[in-house]
Amino acid sequence: MQFHQNGYEPGDPENHDPAERYRHGGAVGPVPEEVDVLIVGTGPAGLTLAAQLAAFPGIRTCIVEQRPTRLYRGQADGIACRTMEMFEAFGFAERVAREACWILETTFWKPDEARADHIARSGRVQDTEDGLSEFPHVILNQARVQDFYLDVMRKAPARLAPHYSRRLISLAVDESAAAGPIGTAYPVTAVLERLDPSHEGRRETIRARFVVGCDGARSAVRKAMGLALEGDSASQAWGVMDLLAVTDFPDIRMKALIQSARDGSMVLIPREGGHMVRLYVELDKLAEGERVSQRAITAEDLVATARRILHPYTLEVKDIPWWSVYEIGQRLCPRFDDRPEGAPANRLPRIFIAGDACHTHSPKAGQGMNVSMQDSFNLGWKLAQVLRGLARPELLATYSAERQAIARELIEFDREWAGILGKAKEAAAAGLPYDPAETQSYFVQHGRYTAGTATQYRPSLLTDDARHQALAPGFIIGTRFHSAPVIRLADAKPMHLGHVAKADGRWRLFAFADAEDEGAPEGGIARLCRFLESAASPVRRFTPPGADADAVIDVRAIFRVPHRSLAIERMPAFLLPLTGRLRLRDYEKIFCNDPADRQNIFVNRSIDSVRGCVVILRPDQFVSALFPLDAHAEIGAFFERILLPQA
Amino acid sequence: MQFHQNGYEPGDPENHDPAERYRHGGAVGPVPEEVDVLIVGTGPAGLTLAAQLAAFPGIRTCIVEQRPTRLYRGQADGIACRTMEMFEAFGFAERVAREACWILETTFWKPDEARADHIARSGRVQDTEDGLSEFPHVILNQARVQDFYLDVMRKAPARLAPHYSRRLISLAVDESAAAGPIGTAYPVTAVLERLDPSHEGRRETIRARFVVGCDGARSAVRKAMGLALEGDSASQAWGVMDLLAVTDFPDIRMKALIQSARDGSMVLIPREGGHMVRLYVELDKLAEGERVSQRAITAEDLVATARRILHPYTLEVKDIPWWSVYEIGQRLCPRFDDRPEGAPANRLPRIFIAGDACHTHSPKAGQGMNVSMQDSFNLGWKLAQVLRGLARPELLATYSAERQAIARELIEFDREWAGILGKAKEAAAAGLPYDPAETQSYFVQHGRYTAGTATQYRPSLLTDDARHQALAPGFIIGTRFHSAPVIRLADAKPMHLGHVAKADGRWRLFAFADAEDEGAPEGGIARLCRFLESAASPVRRFTPPGADADAVIDVRAIFRVPHRSLAIERMPAFLLPLTGRLRLRDYEKIFCNDPADRQNIFVNRSIDSVRGCVVILRPDQFVSALFPLDAHAEIGAFFERILLPQA
Repeated sequence: MQFHQNGYEPGDPENHDPAERYRHGGAVGPVPEEVDVLIVGTGPAGLTLAAQLAAFPGIRTCIVEQRPTRLYRGQADGIACRTMEMFEAFGFAERVAREACWILETTFWKPDEARADHIARSGRVQDTEDGLSEFPHVILNQARVQDFYLDVMRKAPARLAPHYSRRLISLAVDESAAAGPIGTAYPVTAVLERLDPSHEGRRETIRARFVVGCDGARSAVRKAMGLALEGDSASQAWGVMDLLAVTDFPDIRMKALIQSARDGSMVLIPREGGHMVRLYVELDKLAEGERVSQRAITAEDLVATARRILHPYTLEVKDIPWWSVYEIGQRLCPRFDDRPEGAPANRLPRIFIAGDACHTHSPKAGQGMNVSMQDSFNLGWKLAQVLRGLARPELLATYSAERQAIARELIEFDREWAGILGKAKEAAAAGLPYDPAETQSYFVQHGRYTAGTATQYRPSLLTDDARHQALAPGFIIGTRFHSAPVIRLADAKPMHLGHVAKADGRWRLFAFADAEDEGAPEGGIARLCRFLESAASPVRRFTPPGADADAVIDVRAIFRVPHRSLAIERMPAFLLPLTGRLRLRDYEKIFCNDPADRQNIFVNRSIDSVRGCVVILRPDQFVSALFPLDAHAEIGAFFERILLPQA
Repeated sequence: MQFHQNGYEPGDPENHDPAERYRHGGAVGPVPEEVDVLIVGTGPAGLTLAAQLAAFPGIRTCIVEQRPTRLYRGQADGIACRTMEMFEAFGFAERVAREACWILETTFWKPDEARADHIARSGRVQDTEDGLSEFPHVILNQARVQDFYLDVMRKAPARLAPHYSRRLISLAVDESAAAGPIGTAYPVTAVLERLDPSHEGRRETIRARFVVGCDGARSAVRKAMGLALEGDSASQAWGVMDLLAVTDFPDIRMKALIQSARDGSMVLIPREGGHMVRLYVELDKLAEGERVSQRAITAEDLVATARRILHPYTLEVKDIPWWSVYEIGQRLCPRFDDRPEGAPANRLPRIFIAGDACHTHSPKAGQGMNVSMQDSFNLGWKLAQVLRGLARPELLATYSAERQAIARELIEFDREWAGILGKAKEAAAAGLPYDPAETQSYFVQHGRYTAGTATQYRPSLLTDDARHQALAPGFIIGTRFHSAPVIRLADAKPMHLGHVAKADGRWRLFAFADAEDEGAPEGGIARLCRFLESAASPVRRFTPPGADADAVIDVRAIFRVPHRSLAIERMPAFLLPLTGRLRLRDYEKIFCNDPADRQNIFVNRSIDSVRGCVVILRPDQFVSALFPLDAHAEIGAFFERILLPQA
């Protein structure tokens, strides 16, 4: 899809009508007085959370934003493979793939050995290893990502739109109410100030069961919690520009890491629409407390630096849709929720922070937006299950525990990567040669990390230990479910098994059959189904009366035999449930291996062909546990520790 | 995507808000007084045409419809592979693929040999042969297809919405104006009557340069032209139902052709959303002039017949979202335009008909909606090029010539297929055995026809003869361009070459390099580019001054060497044109073979590795001509006979 060739235009590039592209779309009127969840901030973290909560008609959510409208340009743009997998769960991965720029190869440039004021290509690598994800690494303006979330929210069961022009003034927790049952009180009181001209200065009070601060590095929510980002006292200054430019630099449509001899390094990221390019120019380290704004750097300064780095290639700038100079330190908040240390067990966390409000780091590895969205994807289903009375409230404490550890890893990675990228400059300053192979090798080694697929949660309430890991070494406990192709039995449709895991707050139980099982009553799948129909079944115990059998735990079976060898009429009835108001049969629970596909799921994920395997997925697509097919009691016990009986 | 489980709901299944799903979206106010094109009817043919014309901001189009709103349910549902290729050109193929039901396998059922009142499966085949198209055969409600077109129209440069509640009263052609130049007069006068309650009976007069009747089998436009459908005097009665039902029939999510011993045949089509199914029940042949409505057949009658055919399988109907009983004959209009025979050359066709207005036939092969859309896709770009002054007006006569021949083939196919499907019933009536293998074998043999890929236009102004066919036997002159995967040089993106052919009214020139060519000045691609930059170039002669170089003829080069062997900085500048207001470089003109892909384009389309090949595509994606890479004069002469010099 080509666009922006006549200059940058925000919004849906397929819409030629400016009036529709600039539509406001915010909620009108005052904020509600009482809500289940108040979200502060409509960045990627806030909107991921809002889109998740909007899936549940019974949950009242309000999302407020200081800006007067939706975002039109600028800011983050890197979308990791893992993030695309999450977008698939929200239903817009294909749309992003169509509009975004795909990063297939990354090139490395260094000072030319013959002429140090020239750069020369030193390497070229495939960006993402084969088979790491079914989705590519892509680049798309944060504003567009947010548009897609706003769309999801608008169409969702609990239709939701942001209240713009609201600034958070104060946040207070009623400690006695905070220790009470979920459904009886609104322990958090937030005061907002309206910023829109017709209501300027008017205050609104909103009472919430939970508040989530997704309000960026200068988070007012974090401050109200009495927390601070900790880490480097000095910050790194960065210049970033989106350019519409003409150049003879040959890799202008590839991701390029460029290290010049004397003018520092630059990351070049091609952008959506076929013409735009983003340049990240590394500026100086700032002194403690120094602000980059004091240096009065202009867009022209950045262009001049970029030109020097790119020499001998030309850069003729036609338009600068967005640019910024900013400082950033590697900083981390020690906790992501407000639960006082040593508080009694019934004092739930009532305020959370996510995204830049908890962690800041350089933009170089393209991780910021991705980690932020994964933060709130982790939090959203937990809030929903607790608010819906499905899960034990202790679940809420796992958010800070899981995501703070991930943020810590991110900061460490960022520090290491910044050090490597800085070496060329240091070497040049010292008049020493520098071997760019180190940069390239580090980049390749950490490909899984930057793709977002290396995240692994440690054993906890939610994450089982590794005792059954050998049943399927390709589904690593604590990591995201690594999807693979299967064939749906009822209609022979080839599809990705992971794509049944939608952002609908449900647990998934994937039962992989042994190599002989054809669904017969004595087979492992049929025996598991009989257990899941019994009174001891977690499916029965934790599903509210009257709800569909798959409303809380969605069970799918995957057979190892090819689909033409299986007869749907001989499958256990449990796998063909009657659901919905009309009690229609659901034909989408049974899958088969695709033997024609060398990427087939049983081989590629090394699933035990004799014993089969049960894989439990959390609602955010992470693997919680593996079990033998016949470990019925263990499966029940796993859910028992998280979910609440509904009978 | 699962939906309709609580009952049928029209509109976007991802939108939970009924108010938004039922939005009207029609144009308000009176119709314009003068337009370039008046389209009568908003079925698939009318909307394909409207979406095509809406791509051109300079063309004024009005589309009117007798119904008061957009379509909500019912009617056609089969979408052939070729139609998906066209949807890709309009930008919504992926969206359709996501929402639609895919037809991967078709099963055949016959009377059980042991018990004649039972049916038994007699065969099962892959629905579409491998490699026939990059798109699947899918099923989606016509109403949704129309929604996607309405979306395209709404977002297009010439924003367009239908005027609903308008009935065509009369149509008159001013013969002297009809023979005049295109841009000076409005030779056709249409009178419309408003049917909306607040304006009921009010008449509107609209003057048009061209009128297109897409108003169905009882077309008022066709009648005003003095034409009639010719063919069978007797009609076949059909019953059709969309059901939400519970059954133990095992192939309920496969396409199934079912022939019972005593109760006739039935076509079962699974539908979008995972639950709905469509049944086509063949009823009796009607006597001449007899109307099926006289028989007072009810939905219950149809369900009872379906139950008898399906025996011993059960069918418990929960909801009937739509049903209809109708008669249809195999009929064809002898001409698809109003140009009087023997009229002087300057008397252009001014009124056209498309879709059911020109041809009617049974629903059994799922062709109706597909052929209708291809009719107006054929006509749209021709009208646009003539109205824009780019092409010779003679182009317009090719519409009726090309599409009437295709419609004739369709009628013949339908007659043959109906005969085969009817044989089981005839055999049963005569007490004779019937071999269902014949049905299955006919179905497989005609797979390309039903996929829509067998359409081949005969040599004409637009379609060259076969003298250069041997250069690329896989691109058959007169058929639609058969896409294949390639790698884009600038960013290493794997993509389908055919997907660059958007519905933007442009011609495409695909230049396939010989096996040695790496873009060097002495190579065939560079020599072709020098010709295309020269004064004799069709690209220069037929592109209006000031327009982008690729505005009329879009040139793309495909190299046979892998992309890492090519240096973009050594490519001819002609393949990296500066376009748009900002004169930015277009990096999407150069592609490479994908040697890793065994489906690679050079091998699979048998492109001459020594001589290379130029393929000329019409704006509707059909292959007009093949040429040797160095046949510069011949390439120029081809365009000369169709396009008008712009200098």
